[in-house]
Amino acid sequence: MAENKIKPRILTGFMELLPADQILFNKIYDTIRQVYESFGFLPLDTPVIELSEVLLAKAGGETEKQIYRFTKGDNDLALRFDLTVPLARYVAQHSGELTFPFKRYQMSKVYRGERPQKGRFREFYQCDIDIIGNEELSLVYDGEIPAVIYSIFRRLNFGKFTIRLNNRKVLNGFFGALGLSESITDILRIIDKIDKIGRENVISELEKLGTEGDKISRIMDFISVSGTNSEKINALKAMDIDDEKFAQGVDELERVTGYMRDFGIDEDYFEIDFTIARGLDYYTGTVYETVLDDYRNLGSVCSGGRYDNLTEYYTSAKLPGIGISIGLTRLFSQLKEAGIIKAESSSLVKALVIPMGIDMEYTLKAAGNIRNAGIPVDVYYAEKGMKAKMKYANKLGIPFAVIIGEDEVKSNTVMLKNMISGEQKAVALDNIAEEIKTQERM
Amino acid sequence: MAENKIKPRILTGFMELLPADQILFNKIYDTIRQVYESFGFLPLDTPVIELSEVLLAKAGGETEKQIYRFTKGDNDLALRFDLTVPLARYVAQHSGELTFPFKRYQMSKVYRGERPQKGRFREFYQCDIDIIGNEELSLVYDGEIPAVIYSIFRRLNFGKFTIRLNNRKVLNGFFGALGLSESITDILRIIDKIDKIGRENVISELEKLGTEGDKISRIMDFISVSGTNSEKINALKAMDIDDEKFAQGVDELERVTGYMRDFGIDEDYFEIDFTIARGLDYYTGTVYETVLDDYRNLGSVCSGGRYDNLTEYYTSAKLPGIGISIGLTRLFSQLKEAGIIKAESSSLVKALVIPMGIDMEYTLKAAGNIRNAGIPVDVYYAEKGMKAKMKYANKLGIPFAVIIGEDEVKSNTVMLKNMISGEQKAVALDNIAEEIKTQERM
Repeated sequence: MAENKIKPRILTGFMELLPADQILFNKIYDTIRQVYESFGFLPLDTPVIELSEVLLAKAGGETEKQIYRFTKGDNDLALRFDLTVPLARYVAQHSGELTFPFKRYQMSKVYRGERPQKGRFREFYQCDIDIIGNEELSLVYDGEIPAVIYSIFRRLNFGKFTIRLNNRKVLNGFFGALGLSESITDILRIIDKIDKIGRENVISELEKLGTEGDKISRIMDFISVSGTNSEKINALKAMDIDDEKFAQGVDELERVTGYMRDFGIDEDYFEIDFTIARGLDYYTGTVYETVLDDYRNLGSVCSGGRYDNLTEYYTSAKLPGIGISIGLTRLFSQLKEAGIIKAESSSLVKALVIPMGIDMEYTLKAAGNIRNAGIPVDVYYAEKGMKAKMKYANKLGIPFAVIIGEDEVKSNTVMLKNMISGEQKAVALDNIAEEIKTQERM
Repeated sequence: MAENKIKPRILTGFMELLPADQILFNKIYDTIRQVYESFGFLPLDTPVIELSEVLLAKAGGETEKQIYRFTKGDNDLALRFDLTVPLARYVAQHSGELTFPFKRYQMSKVYRGERPQKGRFREFYQCDIDIIGNEELSLVYDGEIPAVIYSIFRRLNFGKFTIRLNNRKVLNGFFGALGLSESITDILRIIDKIDKIGRENVISELEKLGTEGDKISRIMDFISVSGTNSEKINALKAMDIDDEKFAQGVDELERVTGYMRDFGIDEDYFEIDFTIARGLDYYTGTVYETVLDDYRNLGSVCSGGRYDNLTEYYTSAKLPGIGISIGLTRLFSQLKEAGIIKAESSSLVKALVIPMGIDMEYTLKAAGNIRNAGIPVDVYYAEKGMKAKMKYANKLGIPFAVIIGEDEVKSNTVMLKNMISGEQKAVALDNIAEEIKTQERM
């Protein structure tokens, strides 16, 4: 063919995986989903395309520049850039049909046309949970959210991790009492960088901001409070801060950490950290970040917090909530690169049936027996030699080969080969699934 | 708040579900995925946005008009309108890294900006499987594809269904032998409508096309061949058609139906039908449609077929394949409307723990015990009365309530209420999960 071919390619900033990696990705995705569901979160699936007017009700500045926005017919449309705005729209739209507290998870792709750079994606999965209350929402949920995080990262087995938490009321109260309410945002932004830029630079940036020296020392004392979680709370109580918000925040922190223990979260896995603020300005209470202890440079792998009002742009109802998000595409790509996770197999089947010059009836009966017992199975139909067939099974990492020649048909058996141990064994046609299950348990 | 609120809404032609329906949708989605995986299909997840040049390599006419297409920066972009073109691009791009035959499933949303009409969606899920061979692909796969369909629709339990199949070589050979090669497309389009417009109208449309009378009778005889699948094949053999393609098609049909039996498909569930052609011009061999017997008006709920060359627009490699697609969004919406499926519960949890004026420690221990045993569980934290709490459990359709008051804490038990039978029973704290599992089995 002499005609011109179009070069098959995708856009930069989009992640597309080969099967082995996709299997690995799905395993993580499914684990997160399973945990979300085990805590009673309900599935939600909103459209990727929404009306710009609705989606950008709040957005502005950086976010708006990154939006994929276009017209179709008379409609000004945009691709969702997160899952929080669609949730707010959904809850406002259906508040009469939902049961509150409304717990939902959504694990879907979102779109941001950022300049592509390492570790940044233009299309990526967010795995979100949120709990939305009607007028009020129990503080126990502030303990449940980290219990979900704990359960997920324990099961994912990426090594030791730490859930860092803080409370925005503690921060706002503290800075308010120092008379620094107006520069809170700037101060928090500076403090937030302490892990990256160090203590000295934080101090000098606070100075540049015009913060007075004695206040800077109080700030530095505050964010340096150390000890166990209980000791930190006691240190807050001992501080001479006469502010109602502050007192409320301290009380919440104390109760939330108590609930976290009640939820069975090992004390080693969570840590109050007064430098955690989370950039987004809608957090009003508990805030979280999660770091993998051995890979702190990855930054927070799961963050979120409590907000007073989810739906203010759509309705005057008061719907407070709390939620977290895992940026799965980025996390997956980082974990792969750091060698923390590794693809194990290019196949989902446990067994490959390999007919050697026999008819399909017997072959497919064997495959059917295995599949009907709940074991994923494939058949190699191509008329290739034994070597090519075994190579195929090896390449895909399929753990069992079920080889069938004329002798097996005659004796109503198959030759079951364990591809890991290399052992072969004649097994009766009706017992293959059972034998595979037995060998898998060993 | 006096400020203007934006009306929360989505675009017409987009499906968004309330939790009970979303749970039902996911159940169907998960069943399809499970069956696909049990046959060894590998997951694939391609970007929603692709370069227009790549995505529209083949498209034209109607399809192109429906595309969501826009520019971002210097890029001319489009949203995928099916999963076949991205598959072709993917296989061409990664052919060196894939193991053939390459079996993949993709169950994702696609976008078509059609004029909205009943039962048509602009964003909808396609659930596709395809098997791609390198240079060649065993005919056994033509039997495996309907085995997958059979397995799915047996498990989904929408009632009796029929997989209709045909072979394009039979059609092409037959019309070629009649000297009608040039008008095949028109003739097939007319024949395809026979269910809707009836025999007489098919004849009159064929006449309008200029088809000679004796050829029309041969066509009508051909598409009216009746009897069992074997009788139909015998009828083809008995026809006096001297055409190599035709003979090859008949042989394929015979072998494919044989494989389908070997795969354990009940003969009652498939039927050779010479009116099936499938609109798409790239099918070259076996073609399928699937109808729900009691709801034939829904049209085909699962269609596809074999094609000679998937990737011709991207590479000169020859990659034949076979595949099917389930348009899940449309199917779900039709099944709901026809009352064939019904949402059962607004919750994924099996048990709701309800504390009555006791502390969280005991409550969360009970919930933890249940969850750790693999049973999804939720806790009702809000400080409401017993009635409100039971109403919540009832409204969501949660099958078990775990009620805990001071007496239960003292005796280290809970009160387990079966919400369906209404029975209550005191159960030891450590035995709740076991008791729930026992009652569920009854």
